Amino acid sequence: MKAALITGARGFVGRHLARALHHQGVRVCGIGHGAWTDTERAAWGVSHWLNGDVTKRNIDIVLSNVGQPDAVFHLAGGSSVGPSLAAPEEDFRRSVLSAAELLEWARLAAPDVRLVLASSAAVYGAGHRQAICETDALAPYSPYGYHKRIAEELFESYGKNFGLNVAIVRLFSVYGPELQKQLLWDSCSRLLNDATRLVLGGSGNEVRDWFHISDAANLLRIAASQANHDGFIINGGTGIAVAVRQVAEHLCAAWGMGTQLEFSGKSRQGDPQYLVANIDQATSLGFAPLVNWQAGVADYVAWFKHVNTQAVA
Amino acid sequence: MKAALITGARGFVGRHLARALHHQGVRVCGIGHGAWTDTERAAWGVSHWLNGDVTKRNIDIVLSNVGQPDAVFHLAGGSSVGPSLAAPEEDFRRSVLSAAELLEWARLAAPDVRLVLASSAAVYGAGHRQAICETDALAPYSPYGYHKRIAEELFESYGKNFGLNVAIVRLFSVYGPELQKQLLWDSCSRLLNDATRLVLGGSGNEVRDWFHISDAANLLRIAASQANHDGFIINGGTGIAVAVRQVAEHLCAAWGMGTQLEFSGKSRQGDPQYLVANIDQATSLGFAPLVNWQAGVADYVAWFKHVNTQAVA
Repeated sequence: MKAALITGARGFVGRHLARALHHQGVRVCGIGHGAWTDTERAAWGVSHWLNGDVTKRNIDIVLSNVGQPDAVFHLAGGSSVGPSLAAPEEDFRRSVLSAAELLEWARLAAPDVRLVLASSAAVYGAGHRQAICETDALAPYSPYGYHKRIAEELFESYGKNFGLNVAIVRLFSVYGPELQKQLLWDSCSRLLNDATRLVLGGSGNEVRDWFHISDAANLLRIAASQANHDGFIINGGTGIAVAVRQVAEHLCAAWGMGTQLEFSGKSRQGDPQYLVANIDQATSLGFAPLVNWQAGVADYVAWFKHVNTQAVA
Repeated sequence: MKAALITGARGFVGRHLARALHHQGVRVCGIGHGAWTDTERAAWGVSHWLNGDVTKRNIDIVLSNVGQPDAVFHLAGGSSVGPSLAAPEEDFRRSVLSAAELLEWARLAAPDVRLVLASSAAVYGAGHRQAICETDALAPYSPYGYHKRIAEELFESYGKNFGLNVAIVRLFSVYGPELQKQLLWDSCSRLLNDATRLVLGGSGNEVRDWFHISDAANLLRIAASQANHDGFIINGGTGIAVAVRQVAEHLCAAWGMGTQLEFSGKSRQGDPQYLVANIDQATSLGFAPLVNWQAGVADYVAWFKHVNTQAVA
């Protein structure tokens, strides 16, 4: 791979993927929302950045600087469940319309490009009790989950009907430095304010597959090499089930202030109890996750403290 | 039901549904593409018509004349497989964007309205060998089939996530007067030109469920009464398997000129061999198709000859 376009490159997964590709000598350009200073953009390995919607025209514009890419990583999209319930139309626009625009662009202008969609375990929904295979039943929850599934179907359609090379990666609970939402971020933010006691929502028994961003970026790169007409689908996770309580306990320990941890018992409606990936498909491609969750959580805490110390200083 | 909005009211299914509802005393307004004279519109029982895209704003405009509807029948959408392959973006806009606009309109302005989506057996795809149940696996073929499935998912999402009352009717091979495409129209058009010999594509052994438009309109009305938060899904068909060859033979006989019928043996790629509905769900609601296919085909030929005689005269 010599050149890649990343939609949503300024987001959490996008910037890490950009840097990883850049380190491998890939020329990376990006498109998506948000102003990005040249310094910061360059620090993440992005040579050109267009701040705007993912449209055919905007893709042409950003590529006019760098030429046709070998691969496009479509990471633009709605960000999570909550905002999609508050503003479903915006989530639809971000997840579905951007996918439709990208696919039409590829059909018309770059039929040989490899297209990778970052989808989500949210397409599997609730009710699972063991590691989930790619062929298991889908039951999206929230508009976010539905719109991710719809984006997948658009990728499948353009693969089967127009011969585009597409791959879909269903990311489980991706985390790591720069992630400024969800369990780790919320917990650290509250510990920064009061480290004596941390009360989290839910029972703490919710089980997730904590997938470190560096492993996720690696898997996305591998997925690009597997893109084909039939729409290759692969789970992105570690296969290891870890409860929210375990992660929170480890996080408090890493924080190092003897925090008293509690759970409210109140779960968010529709929140799945168990979302863990079966990663047989990924491992058959030679993929192996390198970051264990304990090390990943400790690193996250170190990053958080570092950033916040800098901010205060 | 006192008032209804029909998107795509000027289309084949739309105009028949409008007339059927009008005959039951329902005030019907419509929105969709195409100029429609006041005389013709009124003849089909449509009190107001807006020629334009299905957008929230256009829905508000057309309803400003008639007030809030009890039900919306969403019949706007891509029309068939061929055009969706030639212009997938337009099919996407017609099928998916129109659904997204309608659902957002309902969420914001009419959360109690009953929403019925006319979907298609195309979501089931190829590979079936017996009557298809609503819970059977989906394998859409063509962008048309994918976009219909995506519209279904949007309806499901707005039902489950926002409590809208939605129902989905998967129509099988709907036919009847006014249908100016597909097997019956193409055959009659060619017989009009040369009634000695009719050569059709495919093997003639393709099996379909021929669903008369008057029965389809009736089922759509019934579906509106069943709309709920979980997204009621129902097949629209007769449950009776009839091969293309049988229909073509019956059509030639009804034409009455001793036509020699042949099949080329060349099938369209991806065209399913067998698409027949299991209609247990529909019958459990008291629905029973009233038009048998032999009578329906003979009536179609009579309508076609009538229209074309008028045109010539």
